[in-house]
Amino acid sequence: MRQFDLQETICGIEPADKNIMQQANARLNALAKPPGSLGQLEELAARLCGVSRSLSPDITKRCVIVCAADNGVVAEGVSSAPQSVTAAHTINILNGSTGVGVLAKRFGAELMVADIGVNAELKHPGLIDRKLRLSTGNITKEPAMTQAEAQRAVEVGIELAHIAHERGYNLIGVGEMGIGNTTTSSAVLSVLLGLGDNEIASVVGRGAGLDDKAYENKLRVIKDALALHHPDKDNVLGVLAAVGGLDIAAMTGVFIGAAHLRMPVVIDGFISIVAALCAFRLSPVSRDYMFASHISYERGFRLAADMLGLKPVLDLDMRLGEGSGCPILFGLMDASLDILLHMATFEEARIDEEYIEKIDGVRF
Amino acid sequence: MRQFDLQETICGIEPADKNIMQQANARLNALAKPPGSLGQLEELAARLCGVSRSLSPDITKRCVIVCAADNGVVAEGVSSAPQSVTAAHTINILNGSTGVGVLAKRFGAELMVADIGVNAELKHPGLIDRKLRLSTGNITKEPAMTQAEAQRAVEVGIELAHIAHERGYNLIGVGEMGIGNTTTSSAVLSVLLGLGDNEIASVVGRGAGLDDKAYENKLRVIKDALALHHPDKDNVLGVLAAVGGLDIAAMTGVFIGAAHLRMPVVIDGFISIVAALCAFRLSPVSRDYMFASHISYERGFRLAADMLGLKPVLDLDMRLGEGSGCPILFGLMDASLDILLHMATFEEARIDEEYIEKIDGVRF
Repeated sequence: MRQFDLQETICGIEPADKNIMQQANARLNALAKPPGSLGQLEELAARLCGVSRSLSPDITKRCVIVCAADNGVVAEGVSSAPQSVTAAHTINILNGSTGVGVLAKRFGAELMVADIGVNAELKHPGLIDRKLRLSTGNITKEPAMTQAEAQRAVEVGIELAHIAHERGYNLIGVGEMGIGNTTTSSAVLSVLLGLGDNEIASVVGRGAGLDDKAYENKLRVIKDALALHHPDKDNVLGVLAAVGGLDIAAMTGVFIGAAHLRMPVVIDGFISIVAALCAFRLSPVSRDYMFASHISYERGFRLAADMLGLKPVLDLDMRLGEGSGCPILFGLMDASLDILLHMATFEEARIDEEYIEKIDGVRF
Repeated sequence: MRQFDLQETICGIEPADKNIMQQANARLNALAKPPGSLGQLEELAARLCGVSRSLSPDITKRCVIVCAADNGVVAEGVSSAPQSVTAAHTINILNGSTGVGVLAKRFGAELMVADIGVNAELKHPGLIDRKLRLSTGNITKEPAMTQAEAQRAVEVGIELAHIAHERGYNLIGVGEMGIGNTTTSSAVLSVLLGLGDNEIASVVGRGAGLDDKAYENKLRVIKDALALHHPDKDNVLGVLAAVGGLDIAAMTGVFIGAAHLRMPVVIDGFISIVAALCAFRLSPVSRDYMFASHISYERGFRLAADMLGLKPVLDLDMRLGEGSGCPILFGLMDASLDILLHMATFEEARIDEEYIEKIDGVRF
């Protein structure tokens, strides 16, 4: 376990290379197709070049980093599942049989699972144990954690990006497991967007499946927590400490660490994009390294994506979490680089006359 | 070359198997995740089961059928590219170096390219020659073709589905190449949607890239053609004959043939979805076999998708055609079946206690 300093890491983040992106775009515009007609595939390819400082980026070794942690706010009945599911499902994820495991395998990715604060002692050979505490506090009664703990969790995330980098990964996705974390994410997003009391519902969804009454309770819990702590929207660590979670904080660190290491990093669903937004607020340039995968079904996702200025290209009504949307984007990224590297240009595609014996009656 | 009868084929189309779909959904709901949380991936998996009459559908052998034809309406200056591009680019597609070729390779698909009416004699060992005439007529002055030719083109499409089936393909995509075919597709869609003169612009886009003046001209051309022919929206073959194209008609046949053969069939972009809508109007039950891939950037796509009641899951701003969106959906279909077949159920995922030594302080 090594200590990475948040401020130092942020200072070391450089923008993606616009010059390489221009070169990639020049090649994309020379391909035998109407300019821009491959839309976001072209955008993906050019951005991957800019991030990787290469016109043939290597994204073949990829993983999804899953940050697991518990949330004290579950005591308020905000979740349809008991807290013990966090521990159990984290083990399932490690065993590879959950949604993210199956999808990762399809698109050639591996998993890196880290415990940042699960409320149980987990023993699994694959687990990266970075537990900072057993669950956070109940945000309706106390802060989720101290600001020092929030910073430490972000720095753990930075370390996770470094571990991925050292293991040879050149593309990462960011997912989570933590019962109650749509509540904390909604609270954090409300603050970051500066929403008023009667706007908060626009970023509060039904999570894994709440009925109307439970949904009203979730909304009440978030309002109570925000009223208790009044977090300052310009102090991201303060927001995370007051109403966030250890998972969101660590994920924020993964986004920042990936940007520092010049690695493309893929956003999954609602919790993931809230963490990405936290990273963006801490370091606007870190956004150069982020790629949105899918539009989560969870309410509020689009507002976060708009605020980040990133366009998700998959519209799958997914709301599973675990990082499950990331591998699917990996597949589209592969396709985007195939376009860049293997499609013929107009010049290359000039066809041999043997194939067209007679052009007859062309009308103009 | 064999003759397939349209009416006979339509009469042989049976709905997808709802019973198998229910069984698939039962398995999907038993998986270790909140019910429905994998959204459209679950929908894709269940529909593939219903189409294939199997709980483990085989979609490993897949191809994109590309229908190439010319359109006489290019004489009106509706396209930014000359008509000769249809012939040249059809050869490029056969050589595998275009967008659809590169994407097909990535997702394990092959191409089947058919000439339905290219305005040149093409010679290529891979080409399926089903040329019915050299280009259609200029729809502002005459019908695109006779109704008998339109029916023949649809029946050629049915034959193409049969050829694919005989070659062992179990999943097909439907694409096209034909300069001027966004004009004919917009004209057909206007009629099918019953749009009034001042609503037509809502389904007319800029194709491969028209400036304002050229766009106004395209709109004028479509209005002129519709005013000349007044096609009856309930006579699909009549609409295709009056203002359609040989490519659209053949693609319509592919959708119908695929449904008859119980093969899942994927829609690409604007022209492809207009053909799918024609097939749906000829045989509503054929829709059971159709899968939308991406939301084309071309204006009007969404209206057609809404009318079909199909939800595209990719939002890539693509407008290339060639069937280029289909292979990407093939990749998502693979992922959807992985979910169905390889994810653990809650029952299977019951974890060994060895992994969680102590559950400590769980708060409820």
